[in-house]
Amino acid sequence: MGCVQSFRELCDRPKNTNVRISLPAVCFVWQIAMIILFGVFMRYDEESNPHWIEHRKANNLSDIENDFYFRYPSFQDVHVMIFVGFGFLMTFLKRYSFGAVGFNFLIAAFGLQWALLMQGWFHSLDYTDGKIKIGIENLINADFCVAGCLIAYGAVLGKVSPVQLMVLTLFGITLFAVEEYIILSLIHARDAGGSMVIHTFGGYYGLAISWMLYRPNLDQSSRLQGSVYHSDVFAMIGTLFLWMFWPSFNSAITDHGDGQHRAAINTYLALASTVLTTVAISSLFQKHGKLDMVHIQNSTLAGGVAVGTAAEFMLMPYGSLIVGFCCGIISTLGYVYLTPFMEKYLKIQDTCGIHNLHAMPGLIGGIVGAITAAAASESVYGHEGLINTFDFEGEFAKMVPTKQGGHQAAGICVAVCFGIGGGIIVGCILRLPIWGDPADDNCFDDEPYWELPEDEESIPPILQYNNHMRNKDVVESNFSMEQH
Amino acid sequence: MGCVQSFRELCDRPKNTNVRISLPAVCFVWQIAMIILFGVFMRYDEESNPHWIEHRKANNLSDIENDFYFRYPSFQDVHVMIFVGFGFLMTFLKRYSFGAVGFNFLIAAFGLQWALLMQGWFHSLDYTDGKIKIGIENLINADFCVAGCLIAYGAVLGKVSPVQLMVLTLFGITLFAVEEYIILSLIHARDAGGSMVIHTFGGYYGLAISWMLYRPNLDQSSRLQGSVYHSDVFAMIGTLFLWMFWPSFNSAITDHGDGQHRAAINTYLALASTVLTTVAISSLFQKHGKLDMVHIQNSTLAGGVAVGTAAEFMLMPYGSLIVGFCCGIISTLGYVYLTPFMEKYLKIQDTCGIHNLHAMPGLIGGIVGAITAAAASESVYGHEGLINTFDFEGEFAKMVPTKQGGHQAAGICVAVCFGIGGGIIVGCILRLPIWGDPADDNCFDDEPYWELPEDEESIPPILQYNNHMRNKDVVESNFSMEQH
Amino acid sequence: MGCVQSFRELCDRPKNTNVRISLPAVCFVWQIAMIILFGVFMRYDEESNPHWIEHRKANNLSDIENDFYFRYPSFQDVHVMIFVGFGFLMTFLKRYSFGAVGFNFLIAAFGLQWALLMQGWFHSLDYTDGKIKIGIENLINADFCVAGCLIAYGAVLGKVSPVQLMVLTLFGITLFAVEEYIILSLIHARDAGGSMVIHTFGGYYGLAISWMLYRPNLDQSSRLQGSVYHSDVFAMIGTLFLWMFWPSFNSAITDHGDGQHRAAINTYLALASTVLTTVAISSLFQKHGKLDMVHIQNSTLAGGVAVGTAAEFMLMPYGSLIVGFCCGIISTLGYVYLTPFMEKYLKIQDTCGIHNLHAMPGLIGGIVGAITAAAASESVYGHEGLINTFDFEGEFAKMVPTKQGGHQAAGICVAVCFGIGGGIIVGCILRLPIWGDPADDNCFDDEPYWELPEDEESIPPILQYNNHMRNKDVVESNFSMEQH
Repeated sequence: MGCVQSFRELCDRPKNTNVRISLPAVCFVWQIAMIILFGVFMRYDEESNPHWIEHRKANNLSDIENDFYFRYPSFQDVHVMIFVGFGFLMTFLKRYSFGAVGFNFLIAAFGLQWALLMQGWFHSLDYTDGKIKIGIENLINADFCVAGCLIAYGAVLGKVSPVQLMVLTLFGITLFAVEEYIILSLIHARDAGGSMVIHTFGGYYGLAISWMLYRPNLDQSSRLQGSVYHSDVFAMIGTLFLWMFWPSFNSAITDHGDGQHRAAINTYLALASTVLTTVAISSLFQKHGKLDMVHIQNSTLAGGVAVGTAAEFMLMPYGSLIVGFCCGIISTLGYVYLTPFMEKYLKIQDTCGIHNLHAMPGLIGGIVGAITAAAASESVYGHEGLINTFDFEGEFAKMVPTKQGGHQAAGICVAVCFGIGGGIIVGCILRLPIWGDPADDNCFDDEPYWELPEDEESIPPILQYNNHMRNKDVVESNFSMEQH
Repeated sequence: MGCVQSFRELCDRPKNTNVRISLPAVCFVWQIAMIILFGVFMRYDEESNPHWIEHRKANNLSDIENDFYFRYPSFQDVHVMIFVGFGFLMTFLKRYSFGAVGFNFLIAAFGLQWALLMQGWFHSLDYTDGKIKIGIENLINADFCVAGCLIAYGAVLGKVSPVQLMVLTLFGITLFAVEEYIILSLIHARDAGGSMVIHTFGGYYGLAISWMLYRPNLDQSSRLQGSVYHSDVFAMIGTLFLWMFWPSFNSAITDHGDGQHRAAINTYLALASTVLTTVAISSLFQKHGKLDMVHIQNSTLAGGVAVGTAAEFMLMPYGSLIVGFCCGIISTLGYVYLTPFMEKYLKIQDTCGIHNLHAMPGLIGGIVGAITAAAASESVYGHEGLINTFDFEGEFAKMVPTKQGGHQAAGICVAVCFGIGGGIIVGCILRLPIWGDPADDNCFDDEPYWELPEDEESIPPILQYNNHMRNKDVVESNFSMEQH
Repeated sequence: MGCVQSFRELCDRPKNTNVRISLPAVCFVWQIAMIILFGVFMRYDEESNPHWIEHRKANNLSDIENDFYFRYPSFQDVHVMIFVGFGFLMTFLKRYSFGAVGFNFLIAAFGLQWALLMQGWFHSLDYTDGKIKIGIENLINADFCVAGCLIAYGAVLGKVSPVQLMVLTLFGITLFAVEEYIILSLIHARDAGGSMVIHTFGGYYGLAISWMLYRPNLDQSSRLQGSVYHSDVFAMIGTLFLWMFWPSFNSAITDHGDGQHRAAINTYLALASTVLTTVAISSLFQKHGKLDMVHIQNSTLAGGVAVGTAAEFMLMPYGSLIVGFCCGIISTLGYVYLTPFMEKYLKIQDTCGIHNLHAMPGLIGGIVGAITAAAASESVYGHEGLINTFDFEGEFAKMVPTKQGGHQAAGICVAVCFGIGGGIIVGCILRLPIWGDPADDNCFDDEPYWELPEDEESIPPILQYNNHMRNKDVVESNFSMEQH
């Protein structure tokens, strides 16, 4: 009887994962759109333009003072985080490594083009000729913008089609650029490492989408919802490159000189502290004190998220350690208690646990940033230092630290609202039955979207046996159905 | 009867893969030769010499204006591309990962020493004392030179012995240095990212060698000529590090300031565009729209190759996107149609498909470079900018952009001729039966040259069964032979 | 009877690997201690402080002359070496990859905090306010300090508990900081790349601990003391990132300008040379001339260790090649002959062969440094260059090169003494039966300390069969015991 019912259910939801028309169409149309828009709007800025030599001589600068040399090493580190970091972090599933690293690659490569345009219109538009002028800082910001969407991918990993991911990215980048403009330019909050702008927004955006795409029968794919030994080692490549290069992430677009220097130091310290408390909690809450790879792969990074906003401020070395200390505990406890709770009671299936790694630490980061900003004083920063660090110039020349703290807090709210609101809308769109997403018993599997090598290697023998048995059951149940 | 015949064939070609004498001999003799030649010729240049402090003070420079700080971050990125990028890109074969990453390591480490000498004689010889003076730029150029040989390795991957690879590298570096001198110094073509000098040359060099070493019975090794799940994930490590660091590759030796800045931006954009069209074509030409890992691993990189020459020019952001757009399509179609065609009709067995990843995109890059150079104007570049970018100085002070375009085109021809011509000659040498190459049924296998761990893990069960059956067949056929 | 005896033996040594109390306790207590000590002592230095802008203007500096831009790219490379390099190099064991990369992560993250304090007290204490002032150079030095302990971890890999590793690190960092202060500040030896300070000390520290923790029955774990195909490929990730970034390691804290430039060139050359002689010796001493992955993974790095001290001196390019040439031979021969000898006769079980990769090449590096220093002259370095390179300033203004050579030699002795002496003491502490280390038949296994995925994938079928048989034997012997 269960068999008949599940058969009927299967008929009701005739999932077709063939994306042979939709995926190429989306890729081609959007890439051609990018070319046209870049042709109309995009030009080099004065530091990446051959006229630089004139500019340089007029301002008595050395070639080494081109912004390229201030930011390029950090840019490359951020680039590694986006493509290898995020990509490999998600390879932990036993049969979804191609999708993890491949789709991450696809949506990041698309997203950064759209981000250059969206952010360019808001921040780099030259009103004299109506063109966006780009340089190395725009590339970094585009990578940052993409990070928001890759975080969201973590929540829906294995449950969506590449076409859905492209749609998620298109809207995600758009929302990100608007939200970022509001937070950084209108509200004048500071957020160098993007605790609010990137992690809080990206986290809630992904969770809201995952909530909209809730699959009550996802346990039909439970056989594939775990790791194997080597897929966990692959995931550690992602973890470590994220962990190591996070100081570059948080310092990439901070002020030249002491700003970049201090942001790197604070992030380095916060991350070190997080590792110890993550290990402690992981061991404490596990039978026999054994460590859980999920915690080591993810929660060790929470400290980097949480110093994102305050990294450029005078957080002080011990302050960074404290932030990391708390985040390691909270993030690991999140994996132990919160993720199962959210799946069971809130109907949010969060494959990678982005709530514990990005959303919560992002919120903490916003709060830490607000407090640190509110506590700033000329005695600590110096007169010029305070103006420089908080950019109290132009229309914000009369800003004071306490008020800045309030603006920081307002930024958090905007990020949360955009994340949840945007995610619900985009989630609605993604529920349309046209995107080629996999059936409930076909999730976490590369098979629908990838040509797989003809090997059985990575399927553990015990599963092969189970598959064999299941097939046998099917044959037998078919047989018994015929007899009815 | 087939058995007898194949036995006879085996006797005819008594392949001995024992390189216990030849490999150590080649390594020792060549390394000692390097030491002697370095002792005679190689010295530090003025920026890596303790006299730098005097030079610095005399020219009123800061320590940070030492060329080291302009180029070292890019150098390290290029270094990663050479050793991890090329090495891991080739690990996709199920049982040739040791050879891919290990022999890549060996020939790169030898090649860069020989390249420092060859390129030094042509470009960095100090005529006052007859010494080559090296600095960071020489190290980058040596890595570039090695890249040409590693590309060639891609064509013959799995079918040659390490001794053959050392010979391929020795001659490859030599040819490269001569070809580069002709193209860059005599013809005065510009080729910052080496579309012509590195990729076109390296591609045709490898293809010509592979053509000379054609193995009609290579299908005897077909059981090993594919990937397994995890070997494809390893290969993605190579792909991503190549993809991410290609902006550094193309900008590593361009002009200080805007030159490096612009080259990085153009490459970043071209690569992003390539990913989308590669995915589109891969999905479109596959049954059920499934993506093929071979395309994702390789064709996504074609855009970086194809902007190599023009990256430092005013290609414009949309120009970079267009180049990447076309290359993704052409390269992926190359894998679908051209590689099988070349193997069947042209007798060129191209293991990694370097024709699609390097040779064709390299040609395109040369053409794009010629067009962009010919279209250059003072209105776009500015007076000084034009001179700087195209180096219209010294004996080339009267050069004009249109003429430069012609010189660029001449450069392409030289690269192709050196590649094919050199490859045929070196291929002849490599056909001598003294190099210890594997038999036709022993290709794509680490077993002949590596101590392997005693595990059966990576051989899929289905193959183990086949091996078992084959052994049984041999026993039975032996038995039937005895009965005759 | 053997069964009864082994049973009794098991009772005598009731190893309990449950670290559920001890590991969290150590992590929490030590991390809280770090926070308190950082709160009391640690502040930003003048280049990472908002007052930098005043300092900069007063000294007429550009932002780009902040030490951050001189050293940050090198710092990130060193950071990758510590976490990915050392971590993945040790993943070669078939079932200890989690422990290799995970415990490496844990102790490095703890060690760098303690190192910042220890080294800060010795080198960066501001006597005006009693605070340690940190900047980017301190972060690099902390990473260096951690490297010493990670080297020691290589000797005891798979045989200790994470709690023991934390203790090993706590004492290791402390000893390192004292030893470094004596060698660099009191003796005034130069050791930019740490041949003596890091590698000699770390090597002998680890070997002495391993000697103290000698396990006569370690062969009970011999089934797990090897690699599988893919674990060897993972280890190559570690090897290559160490190899590629070693020029950054040796140049990270050398003098601005020519010092960093020359150190990078020398290291690059030495490493290239080492690869060729390692391959030669590996092939020569193996049956059929096959290469051994253990040699390729480890001995290729020996050249980088051995130019550590002399990299910033005028070693000359050919000198670097010669050092690399010798170290490749010595290190590989060490793996072939010395490691088995040491295990059999000296009772030193050296899992990763750190004697061949760090201790011996470190000694060679110290000697090369002493000779190169003693041979220095004003004709080669120039007057100012000599003073700069050897830091003949302040109380050492009257130092001469020959005497400096003697001081270098004294430095080697201090490093060896601290390594062996410290290792014996710490080894004694680690022998206490309270640390949760694994039983002799449970070594090289992730099972005691990690939640493992429920797959049998990475255990080769032949072992599965053996396990099955062993279990059967146990059942049968239990049965026969009952019958007695």
